[in-house]
Amino acid sequence: MSHLTSDEFRKYGHQVVDWIAQYLEEVESRPVLSQLEPGDVRDALPDAPPEDPEPFEAVMEDLNRVILPGITHWQSPNFFAYFPTNSSPTSILGEMLSAGLGVQGMLWATSPACTELETHMMDWLVDLLALPEKFRSETQGGGVIQDSASSATLCALLAAREQATSGASNESGAKGDLVAYSSSQAHSSIEKACLIAGIGRQMLRKIEVDEDFAMSSEALERAVRRDIESGLKPFFVCAAVGTTSSMAIDPIPEIAEICRKHGLWLHVDAAMAGTAALCPELRSMHRGIEQADSYTFNPHKWMFVNFDCNAFFVDDRQALLNALSILPEYLRNQATASGQVIDYRDWQISLGRRFRALKLWMVIRQHGREGLAQLVREHVQLATEFEAWIHDSEAFELVVPRQLNLVCFRHRRGNAFNEQLVERLNRDGRIYLTHTKLGDIYTLRMSIGQWQTKAEHIEQAWQLIQRTAEDLASETPTTTP
Amino acid sequence: MSHLTSDEFRKYGHQVVDWIAQYLEEVESRPVLSQLEPGDVRDALPDAPPEDPEPFEAVMEDLNRVILPGITHWQSPNFFAYFPTNSSPTSILGEMLSAGLGVQGMLWATSPACTELETHMMDWLVDLLALPEKFRSETQGGGVIQDSASSATLCALLAAREQATSGASNESGAKGDLVAYSSSQAHSSIEKACLIAGIGRQMLRKIEVDEDFAMSSEALERAVRRDIESGLKPFFVCAAVGTTSSMAIDPIPEIAEICRKHGLWLHVDAAMAGTAALCPELRSMHRGIEQADSYTFNPHKWMFVNFDCNAFFVDDRQALLNALSILPEYLRNQATASGQVIDYRDWQISLGRRFRALKLWMVIRQHGREGLAQLVREHVQLATEFEAWIHDSEAFELVVPRQLNLVCFRHRRGNAFNEQLVERLNRDGRIYLTHTKLGDIYTLRMSIGQWQTKAEHIEQAWQLIQRTAEDLASETPTTTP
Repeated sequence: MSHLTSDEFRKYGHQVVDWIAQYLEEVESRPVLSQLEPGDVRDALPDAPPEDPEPFEAVMEDLNRVILPGITHWQSPNFFAYFPTNSSPTSILGEMLSAGLGVQGMLWATSPACTELETHMMDWLVDLLALPEKFRSETQGGGVIQDSASSATLCALLAAREQATSGASNESGAKGDLVAYSSSQAHSSIEKACLIAGIGRQMLRKIEVDEDFAMSSEALERAVRRDIESGLKPFFVCAAVGTTSSMAIDPIPEIAEICRKHGLWLHVDAAMAGTAALCPELRSMHRGIEQADSYTFNPHKWMFVNFDCNAFFVDDRQALLNALSILPEYLRNQATASGQVIDYRDWQISLGRRFRALKLWMVIRQHGREGLAQLVREHVQLATEFEAWIHDSEAFELVVPRQLNLVCFRHRRGNAFNEQLVERLNRDGRIYLTHTKLGDIYTLRMSIGQWQTKAEHIEQAWQLIQRTAEDLASETPTTTP
Repeated sequence: MSHLTSDEFRKYGHQVVDWIAQYLEEVESRPVLSQLEPGDVRDALPDAPPEDPEPFEAVMEDLNRVILPGITHWQSPNFFAYFPTNSSPTSILGEMLSAGLGVQGMLWATSPACTELETHMMDWLVDLLALPEKFRSETQGGGVIQDSASSATLCALLAAREQATSGASNESGAKGDLVAYSSSQAHSSIEKACLIAGIGRQMLRKIEVDEDFAMSSEALERAVRRDIESGLKPFFVCAAVGTTSSMAIDPIPEIAEICRKHGLWLHVDAAMAGTAALCPELRSMHRGIEQADSYTFNPHKWMFVNFDCNAFFVDDRQALLNALSILPEYLRNQATASGQVIDYRDWQISLGRRFRALKLWMVIRQHGREGLAQLVREHVQLATEFEAWIHDSEAFELVVPRQLNLVCFRHRRGNAFNEQLVERLNRDGRIYLTHTKLGDIYTLRMSIGQWQTKAEHIEQAWQLIQRTAEDLASETPTTTP
């Protein structure tokens, strides 16, 4: 009837560690995309919760019997869908320690180490990625860990909203005259943030893109001018370094110039691509970010730190505090009153927060700067090889040139064929990849960044894609693209 | 230069498990509130990230040397501050498995088991707490895990906003005429949600409370009528079952009647108290919640599931989807298109989400319904005893009657004395408790709900509080309260 004893925790804890180790060893052999139908998992579970305690062994049995078949294996080296979410072994150890300590980092006082290690790691990231110095904690700016880039973008939007209205939005609410901008290829989280913040979907201008699917700065300038002439208040631009669909890189210097001219907040979303800045030879993608008001990327994508761990930087922390700070009596304490400490609850949506800096610290120390850069280089190299195969293929073609570790390609037989192809590949289960649309083109995305992925996996995937396409082509009458 | 091997992960994983076991055994002997000064942790860390890999042993050494002294020990049985955040041993195992699987639950397809176990656990919680049937997944409503009650309340507010404006807020933005209501004792997250959603601080009416610090329904009715007469649009009421300061319970039936009459969304925030509904004899606090549009409580507070794990229920999932759903091409998939599945990304702020149902499932099975209820009863019993000691004391008095596991008390010497008392107690480090203000009364909060807390800890705490007050009194001239 009670909690596990220390000895039980040790025993079961060792079992769980061994289970995870074996899972990660064998995950490669499992169908990457779960092959279950809706309802299958629930059908295998009892309707009602147990009245009395059950043995730990029964839970582990059900984990294998019920849960595992319902898992889409993000930790498989054959996972090429979306962008990766890497749960590297070291980051799992960090997550374990974080759960064991079980602290709340809402205030400095509620665990100084949780806040200070986070601040320190954010400064280390400025070093590692050669980010602008103005994002360091000893300046007016600073960094914070968020759960996801969605939250980071929302916080940036809220800070920009408060600044643009001189605080009036927080006082009397949004007024419906603020306009935000992103490219038509920007992540859905920008639109979602505009809905949440009361800006409104119609007040987000989805600016057209060039042939490389990056934002047209001329179109942005035109849109801003048009809105100003209409009596509206442009206030926020979200530029992408690496869009979700095709890793397109918006022209930050030109966009920043427009923002400067019209007094707009520039937020740069490098959720996936940011990690590449570990490699000096890839840093050109960040050209212009020294002019950004805020910047975000996800160590939980390509930097081998398990979800959730988003890094969010601002060059003016006061703007963020103005948007998000509230101090009720029950949270007052001497450290906060002294003004000497950071209370990260004022840098995010929620009050509570986990000790996420621990896993980031452990991963950085496990690999070192050069080790992390080398892992990223290997993935980019694999993507470069895959791109070459597509380039040399008669049946397939590139839709846009490879950027970093993402190859956007398609079979030459056109949209319907490619849709069937990706469906058949994923039903087969040996690899998992997802699609997007670039213009009108149904596009397959080969996203290479999973920590266990090696050359052999890319080679096997390419063989499988070719064979599956040949099979499908032999069953299908020719169609024009 | 690379990731841990399986064997290394096993070895270090076992070490980490043993470290956690020992930490939880010994945490009782550590100062509960970290005794460090601002900057101490950072001063002990190298300025720059390492260039090369460091051994795992070095990280564990620094964990003991640098991090542990900077921890405020939420898992100590002597932690009586705020409300508890329980990281029970079983939930730690669940968190480990979740990190090991490392899946994203944003869509059903990205791990069916992640979504279906979550839906199933939310239905189990309806059973366990005897919540209204309309919150079950087979109805128009349903439940979802959020990171915190702050996020749940924000989502409720957004759903209410969309419903009140027939979707116009999402389209063209908030218009500054919507009015929300909570009591003056409501959690700061309500105000924060109003800021974020573009409602505005001035459009949140903080309704006065009765002598028991619960919302006055008469005052609510008056405020709603006044706002309607002023041409404003009342749309949302947040009622508390268990306020943060004093565990006051707002009169839900009367509030619900007002909401019904004027067409307002009723959100019930039972973040801490909800878990008490495991015990049939304590369910009267939930009287009237069958009339709530949404309801939230935190298994990560008193139900022994480690942070983050908030449970959020709505009786109309479509209202939530209307507020939060966006479907870009790269997230389209057959399962979503079929309409047969839940995609929880549409029930929350962020896109990404962890597999948090796993730890909830494991904790429920570890204890069973009766086991969990018994643990809650023990804490309530301890609080009842503590209340009796205060009641019988000459030096101390209750500020309000105990509710559940929270005792609000003070020394009779008045505010300045109590402020000094709590400061001295926390500096001593053997216990940690925090304060609030009830009316003008500086109030000490004895919050009893940590999983390791037993009768001996309450007895020792009471002895220490008495002795410290006596010492302080002997040093301080008498003041009037």
